[in-house]
Amino acid sequence: MPVKLLKGFRDYLPEEMIAKERMLQRIRQVFETFGYPPIQTPALEYSEVLLGKYGEEGEMLMYRFLDHGDRDICLRYDLTVPLARVMAEHSHRLTLPFRRYQMAPVWRAEKPAKGRFREFLQCDVDLIGVQSAIADAEMILIDVAVLQALGVTDFQVRVNHRGALRGWTRTLGISDGAQEAAFLRLLDKLPRIGEEKFVGALGQEFGLEASAVEGLLGTTRGSAGARQTHARMQDELQGNPDGEAALVNLGEVLDLVEAAGELDRVVIDPSIARGLSYYTGIIYETIIEALPAFGSVMSGGRYDELLGMFSKQQIPAVGISLGVDRLFSALQELNRISTQQTPARVMVVNFGDDGGRREVQLSARLRAAGIPTLLYPVPAKLKKQLQYCQKMAIPFAVMVGKDEAESGTTSLKDLHSGEQRQLRVEELIRELSAGSEGSSHG
Amino acid sequence: MPVKLLKGFRDYLPEEMIAKERMLQRIRQVFETFGYPPIQTPALEYSEVLLGKYGEEGEMLMYRFLDHGDRDICLRYDLTVPLARVMAEHSHRLTLPFRRYQMAPVWRAEKPAKGRFREFLQCDVDLIGVQSAIADAEMILIDVAVLQALGVTDFQVRVNHRGALRGWTRTLGISDGAQEAAFLRLLDKLPRIGEEKFVGALGQEFGLEASAVEGLLGTTRGSAGARQTHARMQDELQGNPDGEAALVNLGEVLDLVEAAGELDRVVIDPSIARGLSYYTGIIYETIIEALPAFGSVMSGGRYDELLGMFSKQQIPAVGISLGVDRLFSALQELNRISTQQTPARVMVVNFGDDGGRREVQLSARLRAAGIPTLLYPVPAKLKKQLQYCQKMAIPFAVMVGKDEAESGTTSLKDLHSGEQRQLRVEELIRELSAGSEGSSHG
Repeated sequence: MPVKLLKGFRDYLPEEMIAKERMLQRIRQVFETFGYPPIQTPALEYSEVLLGKYGEEGEMLMYRFLDHGDRDICLRYDLTVPLARVMAEHSHRLTLPFRRYQMAPVWRAEKPAKGRFREFLQCDVDLIGVQSAIADAEMILIDVAVLQALGVTDFQVRVNHRGALRGWTRTLGISDGAQEAAFLRLLDKLPRIGEEKFVGALGQEFGLEASAVEGLLGTTRGSAGARQTHARMQDELQGNPDGEAALVNLGEVLDLVEAAGELDRVVIDPSIARGLSYYTGIIYETIIEALPAFGSVMSGGRYDELLGMFSKQQIPAVGISLGVDRLFSALQELNRISTQQTPARVMVVNFGDDGGRREVQLSARLRAAGIPTLLYPVPAKLKKQLQYCQKMAIPFAVMVGKDEAESGTTSLKDLHSGEQRQLRVEELIRELSAGSEGSSHG
Repeated sequence: MPVKLLKGFRDYLPEEMIAKERMLQRIRQVFETFGYPPIQTPALEYSEVLLGKYGEEGEMLMYRFLDHGDRDICLRYDLTVPLARVMAEHSHRLTLPFRRYQMAPVWRAEKPAKGRFREFLQCDVDLIGVQSAIADAEMILIDVAVLQALGVTDFQVRVNHRGALRGWTRTLGISDGAQEAAFLRLLDKLPRIGEEKFVGALGQEFGLEASAVEGLLGTTRGSAGARQTHARMQDELQGNPDGEAALVNLGEVLDLVEAAGELDRVVIDPSIARGLSYYTGIIYETIIEALPAFGSVMSGGRYDELLGMFSKQQIPAVGISLGVDRLFSALQELNRISTQQTPARVMVVNFGDDGGRREVQLSARLRAAGIPTLLYPVPAKLKKQLQYCQKMAIPFAVMVGKDEAESGTTSLKDLHSGEQRQLRVEELIRELSAGSEGSSHG
């Protein structure tokens, strides 16, 4: 067998990893602006902690084995069950309301396919310990702030509510759990399959007439503003206790998002169901408008009955999960990612006639001024060094040959224009600092 | 079995993780200033890639199992063998000289003990593809820059050279491989066991007289500067080809480190041997002077014969590995770590008399100004909210009650002094921005 990467896994080389790390750093900054600290849990957990939490299908995909002490262990499958364990195990050290984010790889032995890997980064942000519209609204504001920080301008946070979904099913006379789940799966498909097929399936599967869902369908049509859809849902679900409570909550959330000046980012989409059965309140999806085929890049909702699984007490929570890899692909598609081979902004050419001392000294001065500087580490031919600089897409090369050293100057070559200028070191620093912000945040 | 953390593993809660993430971010920034990009490799590798690389003892500690396709796989044990695989597998995409850093957890089923865990973060930085004193010196400069960026002031980079060690053993007539290894192990212990025991063991194990090692011992005594030790070693190893070549290399490195203005950080310590047999040239250790018991916090060296293991060609390389967890403990010991429960600089008190709209709006304005702001998510009693603020060690609380809103002001409470002031929002932003740099970098 040749030496190679394991099937279904990836190496990230610099050209991708520089951009990905920058993206993660911006996301971290947004989380911190909202007062969310990071936590970290191990990659391995006792199987007993994870088993029974992801359904039969999930369990088949878990990497599970015996360790050296014959302990039955698993690789992390998501970040939610470990969070529930943390809430139970460290309850004495955690003060509610508790905010946290976690960025960490998870492992699932899925059949590898285009864009589907067995190791991928999850990123969850959650507000734990309160039932409150402010918490529900905060997730939307974080969602919006993350996309804005990443330079995405056209996107929609699509919101719905489990209570509203329960309202519709009750109104339609669907109350059996399995039937309800089947209905929600069908409803979730509505935007893709269209009204005709939806109504057809509804008749076949549930024996319902088209007229029964006319009210629901009406709320999903066109591109109404969040307030408009909200008012329409209020009319349709009037008299249904689940639906009415849900709409009070959604109304409060809209008020708060409006107070923060971001209401135009939000639409209410009554067809969103989210697959996970643990949601109990508001649910979110996020669509980049130019890239609807990417699906939701951030999703989540309120789940008040999950985190207490180990502590035998109810711990309400609301959260959003970022599809980091999907988001990264989306940014690439939108040309918001500049691939780079190196973080260096300038390469110091190595003449080596004094063993490289002059070049090391100049490099130290540039770095002290905060300029990412790569020094070519051997005195190769000038042509070879400049080819390297070009290949690594470093925008500038600087030379400090014997002549330059004697006259106290350096030669700065712009690799893009080919232009070359004599500059004193202070001028060089000013020149390279000037445009560096654009590059380091580019 | 109760639900709990797996033996030998750790959870990082906010108070540690905020500080750790900040430390890692500063380290990343230093690497980037030197033009090093990050890469990432999977947590899992084919066992065939890893086996035979870490010795019998290492292999016993590897987490190894069969996956769903009966592939024999292992959890990552270090970052060097995966780097060698990357060099072979992606050679067509990598341009030499190739720089990279990697920060990633590794797993070793060691017997858990105080400060020893089965999952820990490794952080390696390497310059690959050239044999050059500039590359060797660059590692020292990175080492110094990292510690300076972390606020450590008193430290020494202790340097030695495999060629010098070979010089000593040849001079002493030790040429057998096993004997040489035994001698290096003994030499490495010299600073701990002292000259007397060292000379005693030398007689017992190697039949050598004290006078034979007088030259070597002379170079290790006192606290000579790097140049002084270098000159002394030159005298002692004169005529020995390995030793002479090593001292030429070390001399060049000292010249270059001096050109960068950091020579006072470096000492030459002829007793450093580094355990790993793969080093071929310069070797480094880093001691924080106030904390010698912590041992080396950054170590490494030149290893020209390891990275080519999969590509059947020599790929010279030099690198340094940061003991991230050890460094973090050291910073805690030096009081360079401020534990925080939250990144928030201010908490917005929630009166909730308009459903929280006023508070959400104020929070949005503070965040837009870059101030990490936590909004208390429910309208609890004021006393309870301020207790929470105190417990989370958030320095300020801001109130925007009905009265304040009407007069267009806010009340800022300094939780430390207890002082409370009326401020307009623009004044509030100025006030909270002023000191925030100290806090966010603290």
